[in-house]
Amino acid sequence: MFGFFRSKNGTSPTGGVHAIPSELRQDVVTGDWIVIARSRSKRPSDFSVPATQAARGGKDPFADPKASGNADPVARYDDEKGDWLLQVIPNKFPAFTQRGECMVPRAEGPFEVVDGRGYHEVVITKDPVRDFAQFSSTEAALVIRAFHERFLALRQDACVRYISIFQNHGVEAGASLSHPHSQIIAIPVVPADVRRSLGGAKRWHKKNGTNVHEEVLAWERQRGERMLFENKDFVVVCPFVSRVAFEMRIFPKTHQSSFGDIAPSEYETLGNALRAALAMLRDTLNDPPYNFFIHTTPVNGKDSYEYYQWHIEILPKTATWAGFELGTGIEISTLEPERAAAFLREHLPSWARLVGAEK
Amino acid sequence: MFGFFRSKNGTSPTGGVHAIPSELRQDVVTGDWIVIARSRSKRPSDFSVPATQAARGGKDPFADPKASGNADPVARYDDEKGDWLLQVIPNKFPAFTQRGECMVPRAEGPFEVVDGRGYHEVVITKDPVRDFAQFSSTEAALVIRAFHERFLALRQDACVRYISIFQNHGVEAGASLSHPHSQIIAIPVVPADVRRSLGGAKRWHKKNGTNVHEEVLAWERQRGERMLFENKDFVVVCPFVSRVAFEMRIFPKTHQSSFGDIAPSEYETLGNALRAALAMLRDTLNDPPYNFFIHTTPVNGKDSYEYYQWHIEILPKTATWAGFELGTGIEISTLEPERAAAFLREHLPSWARLVGAEK
Repeated sequence: MFGFFRSKNGTSPTGGVHAIPSELRQDVVTGDWIVIARSRSKRPSDFSVPATQAARGGKDPFADPKASGNADPVARYDDEKGDWLLQVIPNKFPAFTQRGECMVPRAEGPFEVVDGRGYHEVVITKDPVRDFAQFSSTEAALVIRAFHERFLALRQDACVRYISIFQNHGVEAGASLSHPHSQIIAIPVVPADVRRSLGGAKRWHKKNGTNVHEEVLAWERQRGERMLFENKDFVVVCPFVSRVAFEMRIFPKTHQSSFGDIAPSEYETLGNALRAALAMLRDTLNDPPYNFFIHTTPVNGKDSYEYYQWHIEILPKTATWAGFELGTGIEISTLEPERAAAFLREHLPSWARLVGAEK
Repeated sequence: MFGFFRSKNGTSPTGGVHAIPSELRQDVVTGDWIVIARSRSKRPSDFSVPATQAARGGKDPFADPKASGNADPVARYDDEKGDWLLQVIPNKFPAFTQRGECMVPRAEGPFEVVDGRGYHEVVITKDPVRDFAQFSSTEAALVIRAFHERFLALRQDACVRYISIFQNHGVEAGASLSHPHSQIIAIPVVPADVRRSLGGAKRWHKKNGTNVHEEVLAWERQRGERMLFENKDFVVVCPFVSRVAFEMRIFPKTHQSSFGDIAPSEYETLGNALRAALAMLRDTLNDPPYNFFIHTTPVNGKDSYEYYQWHIEILPKTATWAGFELGTGIEISTLEPERAAAFLREHLPSWARLVGAEK
C-alpha cells in the first residue's frame, strides 16, 4: 500500500495524527521489516475491493482444454463415470520448458545467464466458477492430491531445484482467465528469497536449537489473537509480520520441511484448512483478488532442512506496493494482523464451526 | 506479471511455443534471478496501459496545502514574486513520526518490534498536472534540489538510518492524489533489501577490487544496446536484469555512494536525466503508471561504502506480480530490456537530441 497513506479505496484514517506511533516489526526468518501504521477507524470494508474476473463472455478455454488447443494432460482425475474432475496440462505459454541446457551458465559481461529449463503446468478443476472458498471437502482434497503428486513427479527430474505451486484469483492478482486454476512451475535454481529464508531459519536453529516456525506457531497458539482455524494436522494464522492486511498462513502441526512430506491422509485436512482460510477471506472482504503460494524447501539438494517448515502464504490484494515498498522492501500495513484476524474469525464457515474446527 | 503468461492488456504471444528457451538472468548485486520469456510478437503497445489519475473533480488538496489543513511547509521555494514553486510539507497521514523511542527494541514472543520513529514528507510542485516528463530543465532541477536539501537536513537526526525518496504516478502505482508529488521517508532501520545489495556490492569489491555498479555501467556503455541517454554527469539505461518491462535506471558517472554526495551543479543534469527517462516512458507507453525511487547508502553509519553507487530506479507498472513472483521473488518479463531500450530510444525527446544529449 502507500500512495498518500490511504487504504485501497481511498478512505483516509480519521484524525490525521495517530494516537500511538506506528510500529516496525521484523520477520524473524527473513530479516525483513514491515510497518504497522495503526488507525482505529479501519473496518474490513475499507479493504474490500471485489476481484475483477476476466471476461466470461468469450469461450472458456478450460471448459475442454484439449479442444482449445492445449496438449494432452500430464495428469487427469476422473469421476466414477469417467468424466474428468481435474486435469493438469502443460501451460500453453510456458515460462519454463524442456528446451535448453540444464544449468550451464554463460557470462554476459559481469552477469550470469542460464536457460529457463523446467516445467510449467496448469491445474484445472472442472467447475468454471467455484474455487476453494466454495469447494466441498472432497473437491479441495483432490486439488491438494494433484499438487502433491505433481510435486513428487517433477522432483524426479535431477535438473529441478525448486517447485513453486501457486494460484492467482482475479485480474488484479494476475489471473487472466476466470476459470479457477492453479499453476506449478519447476525451475533449475533456488530462488534468492527462498535461500534467504532458509538461511534465517538455519541461523535460528543454530542459535536456539529449535525450528523457528514451530517456535513461532507455539507462541501464536498460546497468544490466540491471530489464530483463525485449526484441525488435527494444520493451523491457519494471520502472521505477526504481515506484508499486507488480511495476510494468512497455513502451517503443518508436525515437522515437515518439504511439501513433498505430506501424507495422503492429509489431503483432506490441508484442503479444509485452505477452504476455511479462503472462505473467511471471501466473506470478510467480498471476494477480493488474492494469490496463494506454497513455500517449501529446494528439491534434489543435500540438506535435510530440519530447521524449516513448508507452509502456504495467502496474500489478498488489499494494497498496492508503491515507491516506498519497492524501494526498501518494507511494506506498510494500515491494519494490525490482530484486528484482521478478529474480523476474519467472524466469518469462519459454518461447516468449520459445526464439526468442531474439523479436529 | 504472470497470470497465464500474458502481457497486462491480455494479448498473448503468438505461436504458443517459443522459438528459443526462456532465460534466467542473475542480478550481480542482489543475487536475485529474473526470467526473460522472449516472444517476437511483443510491441510497446502490448504494455501500454495509461495511468488512471485519482479523480480531479474534487478539490485539489495540494493547490494550497495550508488551506487544506496541512501543516506549514518544512521547506519552500518561491519565484521572484514570492509565489511558491515547490513546498515540502509533513505528510498529513504519516507512516513515521517524531513520537516514540529511537530504536529501543521490545520483544513480542520470538519477534522484535521498534517504534516507527522518523519523518514522512511530501514534495509538491505547483502545477497540478505537469510532472518530470513535461517539466522544463529549471523545474526539474528545483525538485532535485529539494530532494537533496531535505536529504541533508534529515540525516542530521542521529536516529535516522535510511532515507527513501520516491514518486508514485497514477492510481495503479499507488498515487491517491493526481497533483504531482514525491515523498521522503526517513526511518530508523536499514531496510533488509538495501543491506543485501550493500552486501553483494561489498563481496564484489572484495573479490574484484572494483565498484560493481561502475563495472556494470562500463560494460553497458561499451555494449550500447540498453543505453538510453547520457549527459556529462549521468547515464540512463535499461538494466540487463530488469524486474519489469521498460525498467530504467539512472547512475552518476563519477563515484558517489550516497545521494547526499551530489553537487548543486548536478541538480540540472540529474533533473534532465529524469526528464529524458520519464518523457521516453510517457511517449512509448502512453503515460503509464510508474514508481521511481532513489537507492542510496544508509546514513549515520561508519562505512565509507566505496563499493556502492547511489542510483534511481524507475519501474513502470507494465506487469502484475502474481503468485510465482510473490512466492519466489523471481519476476518474469516478456520483453527483453534490449528491445525495450530500442523502443524507448525512438522517443528520446527533441530537446535531448537537439542539445547533443545535454553533454
